[in-house]
Amino acid sequence: MRMQIGEFLIRRLNEAGIRHMFGLPGDFNLSFLEQVEASGTLEFIGNCNELNAAYAADGYARTAGIGALLTTFGVGDLGAISGIAGAYSENVPMVHITGAPPLHSMNSRALLHHTLADGAYGNIGRCMAEFTVAQARITPANAVSEIDRVLKACWQERRPVHLQLPSDITHLSIETPDEPLVLSDPASDPGQLERAAARICAALKEASHPAILVDADAGRFGVADIVQELSEKYGIPCASLPPAKGVLDESTPLYLGTYIGAPTPEVTRRAIEQSDCLIGIGLRFTDSSTSLFSQRIAPEALIDLRRHDLSIAGQQMPGVTLREVLMRVLEDMPARPARAAAQVAAAAPATAAAAPDTPLSHAALWPRIQAFLKPCDVIIGEAGTSNSALGGMRLPAGAAYISQPVWGAIGYTLPALFGSQVSTPWRRHLLFIGDGSFQLTAQELSSIQRRKLKPIIFLVNNSGYTIERLILGENSSYNDIADWNYAGLPHIFAPDSDALTLVVKDIGGLEQALAQAEQADRMVFIELKLPMMDAPPALPKFASIFADYDYGECGPRNPSAQPAGDGQAPPKPAKNALCL
Amino acid sequence: MRMQIGEFLIRRLNEAGIRHMFGLPGDFNLSFLEQVEASGTLEFIGNCNELNAAYAADGYARTAGIGALLTTFGVGDLGAISGIAGAYSENVPMVHITGAPPLHSMNSRALLHHTLADGAYGNIGRCMAEFTVAQARITPANAVSEIDRVLKACWQERRPVHLQLPSDITHLSIETPDEPLVLSDPASDPGQLERAAARICAALKEASHPAILVDADAGRFGVADIVQELSEKYGIPCASLPPAKGVLDESTPLYLGTYIGAPTPEVTRRAIEQSDCLIGIGLRFTDSSTSLFSQRIAPEALIDLRRHDLSIAGQQMPGVTLREVLMRVLEDMPARPARAAAQVAAAAPATAAAAPDTPLSHAALWPRIQAFLKPCDVIIGEAGTSNSALGGMRLPAGAAYISQPVWGAIGYTLPALFGSQVSTPWRRHLLFIGDGSFQLTAQELSSIQRRKLKPIIFLVNNSGYTIERLILGENSSYNDIADWNYAGLPHIFAPDSDALTLVVKDIGGLEQALAQAEQADRMVFIELKLPMMDAPPALPKFASIFADYDYGECGPRNPSAQPAGDGQAPPKPAKNALCL
Repeated sequence: MRMQIGEFLIRRLNEAGIRHMFGLPGDFNLSFLEQVEASGTLEFIGNCNELNAAYAADGYARTAGIGALLTTFGVGDLGAISGIAGAYSENVPMVHITGAPPLHSMNSRALLHHTLADGAYGNIGRCMAEFTVAQARITPANAVSEIDRVLKACWQERRPVHLQLPSDITHLSIETPDEPLVLSDPASDPGQLERAAARICAALKEASHPAILVDADAGRFGVADIVQELSEKYGIPCASLPPAKGVLDESTPLYLGTYIGAPTPEVTRRAIEQSDCLIGIGLRFTDSSTSLFSQRIAPEALIDLRRHDLSIAGQQMPGVTLREVLMRVLEDMPARPARAAAQVAAAAPATAAAAPDTPLSHAALWPRIQAFLKPCDVIIGEAGTSNSALGGMRLPAGAAYISQPVWGAIGYTLPALFGSQVSTPWRRHLLFIGDGSFQLTAQELSSIQRRKLKPIIFLVNNSGYTIERLILGENSSYNDIADWNYAGLPHIFAPDSDALTLVVKDIGGLEQALAQAEQADRMVFIELKLPMMDAPPALPKFASIFADYDYGECGPRNPSAQPAGDGQAPPKPAKNALCL
Repeated sequence: MRMQIGEFLIRRLNEAGIRHMFGLPGDFNLSFLEQVEASGTLEFIGNCNELNAAYAADGYARTAGIGALLTTFGVGDLGAISGIAGAYSENVPMVHITGAPPLHSMNSRALLHHTLADGAYGNIGRCMAEFTVAQARITPANAVSEIDRVLKACWQERRPVHLQLPSDITHLSIETPDEPLVLSDPASDPGQLERAAARICAALKEASHPAILVDADAGRFGVADIVQELSEKYGIPCASLPPAKGVLDESTPLYLGTYIGAPTPEVTRRAIEQSDCLIGIGLRFTDSSTSLFSQRIAPEALIDLRRHDLSIAGQQMPGVTLREVLMRVLEDMPARPARAAAQVAAAAPATAAAAPDTPLSHAALWPRIQAFLKPCDVIIGEAGTSNSALGGMRLPAGAAYISQPVWGAIGYTLPALFGSQVSTPWRRHLLFIGDGSFQLTAQELSSIQRRKLKPIIFLVNNSGYTIERLILGENSSYNDIADWNYAGLPHIFAPDSDALTLVVKDIGGLEQALAQAEQADRMVFIELKLPMMDAPPALPKFASIFADYDYGECGPRNPSAQPAGDGQAPPKPAKNALCL
């Protein structure tokens, strides 16, 4: 059927399941935006800037499955690129469309605004190619094939893609296929699939201590339910790497908690490290998910399932997809009576009743937050104190958790909250974000308010970049920031807002605030005042080993720095005497 | 002498004239920041996010001559890259330093946070190479040679450079040269210089109507004074392209105003287009500086002086630098009695006294602003209505003008104001910025306040992206934004602020606000309420020709769109009937 190019792109986005597109208008994308506005099937949601828009599209994709982002050429693309790289790093499928200059101007190397004014138009695409799995500059000749190719790659790899849509071709008509776009995972090679499944089943049956360790791809590739079923059917305990927080049901007896390498609680650590058949799902052992590569996984016990291939005890098997092999194993494995659960008691810190005027501390805060969480909440934890505390919690059944543990860009979560809640406004969304992070993307709060969403936002105000202070520069001025009246912002961004805004300084105030938040049918913004160097217990240790890794033995340390391990290294002076 | 690598870098930055460095802390740059904090000679100024930091470094460089920016690897670099590309596009020298992961981790392809977790460390550098003129990953072996090479290139090209400083080498000591770094322009080939100067002098002496047209490089390469002297000595009238606004003294009789192609006022346009010897300084005829390539410059009359080469009537002469050839021509040309000045009367719009309760309009606003300007002000105009209005004004003697006309990223000016005023806090700084633009980078206002700077900020509130509405989507929702209480923000960002904040709706209010601002020894923030579709007169015409260019003949148009030229094209329907 004949359609305009812009209309065809909208149709394909819809067929991919995309109903909302984040971004900003700019002269090169306005003609496409006219088509979007006319479509009735793709809603454009304006953000305050492009980085925020990319984060919002990422947050949307994490809840909805796939997201879309629209920018204008050059300035907009590069404004968003860190968010796009984040989506790549974290395996989040996102279609990035840029309104490009008219095709003729690029072909004739015209000196346009939003470029380097040197007639070169390849630089933006080359940058985007570093952080996307497919790219195209759409023309009337290639629109059908390129749009389909690029969208399929986005889904297949669960990673961002980049489309340049020249402003002068949006309204040109082309012949398009009648068939809808179908996004699917590739099929496995049947023989390989059979062999792989048989070997995995055999290994499981032989094993005395099987276990499963999942990473974020278990969620992105939609296999969490299968893993859960397999775990229950055969009684296999499961743990998550930090990026997979919230992917599995953390309320079941077979859930072991989070594996973070050496500092993992003993029961969980042993179950993973001493397993004689460990099924890994999309594992990436990064510095931050393994407490700096302190994981101890026996290679001969590891069945390493990746998106489109796998290895068993080091033997590589290409051509087998994650979902198909897991489905097959689930079918083929017999049910087994539940074995003695190796379960770890959920860490329930002593919550001695404190006087209401006790100043707020992390030790008092997080157990109370744990009790505040409800099934099916979407819980969003910003890098730093928030993610550190939430990472150690058991989440209620059905709860989702969003953070950006691999890319780790501070400021990510506020726009990501916006995106996620646009996709599922009916779910309760809780955001925990520090003051330093909040300042990077603060204006996006106004977009949340403009859309009348009702998240509960906890602003953890500890007077600057506390995670950095723990690593280095405890009292250095570069870790200081301006001290805003955070709770006043919602009434500036939306002067007629009915937002509930509270400032909490002590235990009594926290109790009251949570009680009010529980009842509020409106946005809630709670500023939590915490001491500057207070932190969840895991964070100072984590920070200290990072200082060792980052600065080497001649680098500086906080005066208060203690050795990272348990007596493994001698106490280190603030500066090593042997180094200049 | 032996120094630590980080200390050597600080020394070189100081020798390059850099006293302040903008940016954000991150774990990979903290050890360098410790050295910066200890130096006492390089002040680190924290921004709210990396894009803002890049804009601040750019604004600083435009006033101070050269700027510096510090980010952390990956997330920080890509957050800043649009601002770095802007500096490239606009020829602004800026040293971008990123705190990179430890050298050993990059060499061993470790899976670190702030990366794609794939062991690849080249992607960031490749992106940066698109928008910088020199790059290096510093090692103990190459630190001396690479730092010097890269800093020299920054100055020579007046464009950004990129240095990756691994976190584990900052405190290692190296042998460094005793000699200071000297930044200089390359010397010309003596023979070429002599021939070029002789030809230019001959051409000038033969000409009946010589003229000079400058672009931004006249300011960046420090030749504005020489141009001015030459103009006065030999009585040559001068005009500027829009990016060179404020580079020449606009108060002299020989200043013709701004040349913008076809819509240029007649006297100026003729002086440039009919000149029989037009000396161009760093000319780039971009779409936005020429009203879409409507310049008409006779190639045979053009002496095209570029940073390091030139052409005379099309004949290319490499190896001659801008400053040297201008100096030589200035020396060699005889003084000449002032000829009848071809001067254009400064546009002085009728400012009929309006009743105080007359609602504010652009027609009433800008003449009043013109009268408010003082010699030596730094005036900063954001893309859109502000830059359009200010671009048509005569600036007072010694005034500087900052905008980003080539890269054209909205939101640039607020952080750029911050940077410029850090470099010269004693100069009065005036910022004019629209509401849509302001929202992109709004949080940087808090940095301005934290440093107790005292700019006068005019927030032009016209309810959304008016320049976009004029191009397309006059009533489309994608051009709408949230309506903040802008004047309330300064008291949120600094609760104890003494900022003067005002909201102006009518002529009387404007007069009062300007009178108060004139006297205030504190930050002034004035929100100007203007009608949504009101604009300086040049803007709607400009927008209309851009819609024609961007969307082609089949693309959409605003229902109210009129043909761009003066009867050159027939009225165009909102959608061309011949297209689909």
